[in-house]
Amino acid sequence: MAKAPVLTPQSVDFPQWYQDVINKAELAENGPVRGTMVIRPYAYAIWERMQAAVDQRIKEAGAENVSFPMFIPESYLHREAQHVEGFSPELAVVTIAGGKELEEPVVVRPTSETVVGEYMAKWIQSYRDLPLLLNLWNSVVRWEKRPRIFLRTTEFLWQEGHCAHATQEDAARYARQILDEVYADFMVKELAIPVIRGRKPTSERFAGAINTLTCEAMMGDGKALQMGTSHELGQNFSRAFQIEYLDADSAQHLCWTTSWGVSTRMMGGLIMAHGDDLGLRIPPRIAAVQIVLLVVRDDDEGSVAAEAQRLASELRDAGLRCKVDAATHVGFGRRATAWELRGVPVRIELGPRDLDAGVATIARRDSAEKATVPAGGLGVRLAELLTEIQDGMLAAATARRDSRMTGVETVADAVAASQDGFASIEWAKLGDSGEAELRKDAITVRCLLDVDGDVATSEDAAGNIAVVGRSY
Amino acid sequence: MAKAPVLTPQSVDFPQWYQDVINKAELAENGPVRGTMVIRPYAYAIWERMQAAVDQRIKEAGAENVSFPMFIPESYLHREAQHVEGFSPELAVVTIAGGKELEEPVVVRPTSETVVGEYMAKWIQSYRDLPLLLNLWNSVVRWEKRPRIFLRTTEFLWQEGHCAHATQEDAARYARQILDEVYADFMVKELAIPVIRGRKPTSERFAGAINTLTCEAMMGDGKALQMGTSHELGQNFSRAFQIEYLDADSAQHLCWTTSWGVSTRMMGGLIMAHGDDLGLRIPPRIAAVQIVLLVVRDDDEGSVAAEAQRLASELRDAGLRCKVDAATHVGFGRRATAWELRGVPVRIELGPRDLDAGVATIARRDSAEKATVPAGGLGVRLAELLTEIQDGMLAAATARRDSRMTGVETVADAVAASQDGFASIEWAKLGDSGEAELRKDAITVRCLLDVDGDVATSEDAAGNIAVVGRSY
Repeated sequence: MAKAPVLTPQSVDFPQWYQDVINKAELAENGPVRGTMVIRPYAYAIWERMQAAVDQRIKEAGAENVSFPMFIPESYLHREAQHVEGFSPELAVVTIAGGKELEEPVVVRPTSETVVGEYMAKWIQSYRDLPLLLNLWNSVVRWEKRPRIFLRTTEFLWQEGHCAHATQEDAARYARQILDEVYADFMVKELAIPVIRGRKPTSERFAGAINTLTCEAMMGDGKALQMGTSHELGQNFSRAFQIEYLDADSAQHLCWTTSWGVSTRMMGGLIMAHGDDLGLRIPPRIAAVQIVLLVVRDDDEGSVAAEAQRLASELRDAGLRCKVDAATHVGFGRRATAWELRGVPVRIELGPRDLDAGVATIARRDSAEKATVPAGGLGVRLAELLTEIQDGMLAAATARRDSRMTGVETVADAVAASQDGFASIEWAKLGDSGEAELRKDAITVRCLLDVDGDVATSEDAAGNIAVVGRSY
Repeated sequence: MAKAPVLTPQSVDFPQWYQDVINKAELAENGPVRGTMVIRPYAYAIWERMQAAVDQRIKEAGAENVSFPMFIPESYLHREAQHVEGFSPELAVVTIAGGKELEEPVVVRPTSETVVGEYMAKWIQSYRDLPLLLNLWNSVVRWEKRPRIFLRTTEFLWQEGHCAHATQEDAARYARQILDEVYADFMVKELAIPVIRGRKPTSERFAGAINTLTCEAMMGDGKALQMGTSHELGQNFSRAFQIEYLDADSAQHLCWTTSWGVSTRMMGGLIMAHGDDLGLRIPPRIAAVQIVLLVVRDDDEGSVAAEAQRLASELRDAGLRCKVDAATHVGFGRRATAWELRGVPVRIELGPRDLDAGVATIARRDSAEKATVPAGGLGVRLAELLTEIQDGMLAAATARRDSRMTGVETVADAVAASQDGFASIEWAKLGDSGEAELRKDAITVRCLLDVDGDVATSEDAAGNIAVVGRSY
C-alpha cells in the first residue's frame, strides 16, 4: 500500500519542505505575536544539547557567564552611530510600565554591546583586569519583516559573548579563537556541518564592527546560512562607553572589544543541512534521542515491551540516549514513519518473533540500511554504529557541499553557479561593483578567504577569494 | 593591626549587611533601568549550579523543557479575571515595534500561564495526551516599586512549570510532588536550607490559583523568605483558554492545570540563610568554587604556584571544584579575607615552608577551624571534609531555625515572637481577623500546616497550624 507523502519533497519546494518538517515533527510553532516562536520539547532538547556543547567550549576559551537585563535605556543605543543606525528599525520599545508612561522609553535588547559596555567601563581599571571575557545566554528581540521559524524570528535564543582586550592584536586573536575553537569546532564535530570560515566584506559587517568573521554553511538546496559570527569592534564601543585601562606604564588606554554569537538559527541549519524527503536526520552527537526501541507488536504478557525497557536500560548504562516506543495501539508503520520524520539516528525494531529468536532489527536513519543482529551485547555495537553515522553524515555533507562549489572567473558565471550552490571568485575581479551586480540576483558575498583558503586577514589583500551564494 | 570591617555587621543592620555582601563579593549590581540587575560571574556560576540541580529534578519528575515567547498579547491576560487583576499593575507594555505603533500592545510576560494555556488547548486532544508536563527557563518582568537585588527585581531569572492533568486529584498530586521532590529536596540537599512546606492561606495565593503550596525558609535575621511555590490552578485557565480533552468514554472534559516556579530569589535566600559578618558561606554542593588554593607567598622559581597548580589538578581529577589564587602581588591577608567574603567552603594555604615540609594548611569557612595536614592524598580527605561541611551547615541552619520558632496562643504573642523569628499558632485561633491584625505589624501567615506538621490539605481543617512571621 503506497503511503501518502507526509512532506512536500525537497525538489518540489524546499522552503515548503522546511515548514512541513517543522510542523509535522512538532519542532516549533509561530507564537501569538507575529514573528515569535514556541519551541516544543523535541526541538528544545536538541537546543539544550547545542547550548551545553557550545557553553563547554566557551568556558574552555576562558569566558565566564553573566546575566544582563533585557531592558536597555534607549539613549545607550544612540552612543554608537553605526550601531543605532543598524538596529533602530528593528527595536521593540516599552513605553508603559507599572501602570505609568515611562520618562525615558526602554528598548528590549536587540544585542547587548551597549549595556555591557557601560558596566565594563566600571569593572575595568588596570591591565590586570584584562582580558575581560564575558558571555550571556538569553533571548533578544529584532522586529522581523519576513519571519521564518528558527532562521529569522522577532525573538530568538542565543549566546552573546562580550570581551574587552588590551590591544588590537589580542582582540583579533580572540575573535578568531572563538570562530575556530568554539563555533567551527562545535559545528563540524557536533552538528556534522562543514562550515566555511571567512571574513565578511565591509557591506556585510555587524553594525559597529571593524571586522566580522563568519561560519557559513551550505543547506540542502545549495543556499548559504550564516551559522555564527565573531566581531572585532575596534575601539568604537570603548570610545562610546569609555572602557579604559591603566597600563603597567601608568598610561590610560581605550580597550579593544569583541562580541560573538550563535543562536537558535543553528536549529534551522541542522534541519536544512541534513534533512531529506523523509524528514530530519539528526547527527548522533547532538540527538536528544539517539536510539528508539520500537515495539512492533506485543504478546498478551507485554513481554516485548518489558524486553525493550530492559534493553533501553542496558543501553543507557552504556551512555546511549534512548527511548522506548511501546504505543502498539498505533500501527507500526505509522510510528516508524514518525521516528524517521524526527530523524532519530537508529531505530531498533523488536517483535515477539525477534524475542524468541534472540535478535533485533537495527535500522539506520542516514542510509536506510537494516540489519538483524543478536540482541546481546548491543551497547558496544551501537556506540560504534553511532560514531560511524556521525562521521558518515559529516563526510556526506562535505562531499555535497564541495560538489556544489564552483570556481568561476566572471560575475555571470557566479550568478549561474549560485543557482544551486556557491561560487568562488577572485575578490579583486568582483569588488564593490561586482558585489552590487550580484545583489540584483539576491546573491551576496558570504565571506572572503585568503589565497590559501584560510580566513582573509584584510579585505584587500592580494589573492583574496570571495565565496558567493544565495542565502537564508 | 586591626582590620577595618568590610561589611556592616548583621546585628547592626541586616539589610545593609546584605547589600554590602552583594557589592563587596561582586555578586550583582543594579541595572541601568530601575529595578533590573546585572549578575556577575561568581554569582552566576552558583545560579548555573542551581539551575542544573533543579533541572535534573524537573526532568526526573517527567516534565520537558520548552520555550515560549516573552511577548504576550495584552488581551490574553484579560481572559482570567483574578490573574489580570493580580498582574496588571506590574506590567511592562511594548507599544512601539519595528518603527511603528502596534495595533495591539504586547506585554512582556510576568508569567506564562496565559500563553502556555493557548497552546495547550491546541496540543491536547485526548486523555492519551495527559498529563502534559512542560517547563520553561526564562526571565519575566514585574515592575517593582521597592526593588532589592535577587529578592524583588523588575526582571528576574526563573523556571516556570506549566502542566495539564486529567483530574483534580492528579493536579493536586503533581503540585505536591514538585514541592517535595523538586523544590524542598533541592533546597535541603543542595542549598542546605531547611524549608517549611505548607499551604498558603487564601489571601496569599497566586493570582488565578485555587491552592498555592510554598517552601518557606528562615533568614539570618529571623525573617521569612518564600523560596518557591507550586500552584493548583483548578480549571480557571482551562476554562479561559478551552484546554479540553476527550476521555476514554468519549466525553469532553476541561483539564486541571498546575504551575510552579523558583527564581534567582533563591540566591538571596542562600546569602541570607548562611552568611555571617565575614560574608557569604556557600554550601559545598552548590559552590562553584569549593576549594581555593591560596599561594601565601612564592619563591623566585615560582615553585609554590607550580605546586598549587599541580595540587589543583589532582583535586579536579578527584571531582572537586577548585581555583588557584597565586596573585602574590596582593597581600595574603587581603586575599584570604576576599575568599572568606566570597564564602568558598575550604581554603588551602600554601607557602614555601609548607612546600619544604610537605604540608598544607586547611581552613574551613564554616567553622573558621584551621589544621595543618600532609599535602599527599588530599583528594579523599577534602571530599569527606566537604560532605561534613555540607551536613554541618544544614544542621546549624536547622538548629537556628528551630530555636527561633515559638509556639504561641495569642495574636499578641505572635507579634512578639515575630520580631526575630517565626511563631506558630492554631489557625482557628487566628483566622481572617487575626491575620488582618498581624498585617498591621507587617506580619503575614507564611503557610498552614496540618495537625501533624505536614502541608495542610485544606484551609479550614481542624487543628491546622499557621506559621507566621515577617518576610522579605
